[in-house]
Amino acid sequence: MEKLTVTLGIDIGGTNTDFAFVDISGSCRHKTSVKTLSDTPVEHFVARIHETVDSLLNTADRQYALNGIGIGAANGNAFTGCIENAPNLGWKNAPIVALFQDAFGLPVHLNNDANAAALGEMLFGAARGMKSFILVTLGTGLGCGIVVHGQLLTGNKGHAGEMGHVTVEPNGRPCNCGKTGCLETYASATGIVRTAAQLLSESREDSALRRLPPQGLTGRTIADAAQSGDRIATRAFDLTGAVLGRSLADAVAYLDPEAIVISGGLASAGSVLFDPVREAFEENVCAVHKGNVNILPSGLHPGDAAIVGAAASIWKQK
Amino acid sequence: MEKLTVTLGIDIGGTNTDFAFVDISGSCRHKTSVKTLSDTPVEHFVARIHETVDSLLNTADRQYALNGIGIGAANGNAFTGCIENAPNLGWKNAPIVALFQDAFGLPVHLNNDANAAALGEMLFGAARGMKSFILVTLGTGLGCGIVVHGQLLTGNKGHAGEMGHVTVEPNGRPCNCGKTGCLETYASATGIVRTAAQLLSESREDSALRRLPPQGLTGRTIADAAQSGDRIATRAFDLTGAVLGRSLADAVAYLDPEAIVISGGLASAGSVLFDPVREAFEENVCAVHKGNVNILPSGLHPGDAAIVGAAASIWKQK
Repeated sequence: MEKLTVTLGIDIGGTNTDFAFVDISGSCRHKTSVKTLSDTPVEHFVARIHETVDSLLNTADRQYALNGIGIGAANGNAFTGCIENAPNLGWKNAPIVALFQDAFGLPVHLNNDANAAALGEMLFGAARGMKSFILVTLGTGLGCGIVVHGQLLTGNKGHAGEMGHVTVEPNGRPCNCGKTGCLETYASATGIVRTAAQLLSESREDSALRRLPPQGLTGRTIADAAQSGDRIATRAFDLTGAVLGRSLADAVAYLDPEAIVISGGLASAGSVLFDPVREAFEENVCAVHKGNVNILPSGLHPGDAAIVGAAASIWKQK
Repeated sequence: MEKLTVTLGIDIGGTNTDFAFVDISGSCRHKTSVKTLSDTPVEHFVARIHETVDSLLNTADRQYALNGIGIGAANGNAFTGCIENAPNLGWKNAPIVALFQDAFGLPVHLNNDANAAALGEMLFGAARGMKSFILVTLGTGLGCGIVVHGQLLTGNKGHAGEMGHVTVEPNGRPCNCGKTGCLETYASATGIVRTAAQLLSESREDSALRRLPPQGLTGRTIADAAQSGDRIATRAFDLTGAVLGRSLADAVAYLDPEAIVISGGLASAGSVLFDPVREAFEENVCAVHKGNVNILPSGLHPGDAAIVGAAASIWKQK
């Protein structure tokens, strides 16, 4: 049986690292997850991935030829090949490309995780065939990847698309980045938890959220409550959507994209999020864009976008 | 004597239309200005330009070969070749490219005026050799041209770079565009006039601005007063610079450019504008950009950037 050429696509997150063998059609094979454990040395992390990949290659029911490794990581910089000061990772300026090249002896390409996800959506997901769009991922933070002229917008030093850190509320909520009032302090899983907690403290209205165990307030539990009609949870989504929709209107003023794709954990809440986002977007966007920019959910399996997009960076380099 | 090949560069403004023969080195020859008179039919406007150009060609001390016409205009759309709903022009959806092609029988290219100015700065001005920068022009409104990957960012429908209409103050000042709180209602010549008028009405402090004749409050007179140390005028520039600097920090979060170029009438105020812009920018920009993004004045003669940039669009098409 002929060997199938695949690329190892890796999505390095603060808690878990997901990876898979990605074939040319964008299918993820043998998708696996390991703990990132970024409090241990990054060399150990690379060695653990290497062991797991070797074991997968040896036990798989067919033979694979690995042609390279594409990595998406929070604060991954395509220009330097390093993960730089990621707030949720213990490693500081980890030379991840060099380490994986040494371990595997293969071409390695690193991207910011949101940029990798944007490539994934462009090639295989909701933005297939588009030349310009904005991808927003709502997880612990807010990630953003921008595609213009059919290409990922990297910026001068690999830092384009930091939409999570535009200011939406001068002197607003403190952000991990050191500033205040950044978009991701409102529009993200942690942002909506802050909003819901504030709403709960400001009223005495009954809510399912009040009966959660300690630490039980999460993007997921707020989404569940909102989908069941809980008024405080719904209000938290309305406020989150209003801030995000207004910021997306600004982003469209800069970039004039074909569409906006929203992915990540919080986006799986569906219409309780998308409805207020779309309403605020239409209210705030310039007349020329009204009704003309689709706001779409991800077109890929949850968690696949960054893996397949990272892998695709290898194909583009060939 | 051999004919010199030049391009007719035209900058169509609400009041005046400036044009010149632009040679390959970016020099403007025989720069001329006519009234735009957009309350008369656009066909008359094109005929007047045609007559003036013919007369210049016939009386010039050397022979020119015109190779095309590049036009910059507020709300000029490169994709449609039309000027679309420009708030300061009487023509609605004027097919300016077709009209000039018919009149001159030459290749014609239309750009938004700020986009044309960005090309001018990239080829011959403050952004020479840069692959990514943001140009902001502060005139009656706020125009913006964005260059990424060495190319003008047009967007999906030719509407990228509408930075004048990002929201800086929800429920803020009404804007000509129909929205409220748009950046250009604060950061532009008309914006600073509104700010100064507000400051004058809120205090009884003495100011040279109080002794101006009716309608005497303009970007120019406020700049003159600020440069003479007038406290209210200085405060108007401080507020204008603070709003603009904060918005530029957001723009840099999206785009990660090498530099920002600020041009237009209000920019000629110099340090009374640039100092507060730079201060607010550094205060609000992400850590990775602090101290790394230059904010520069235009590197061209006032009014030349859009003319030479518009002309350059013709050369690129060849």
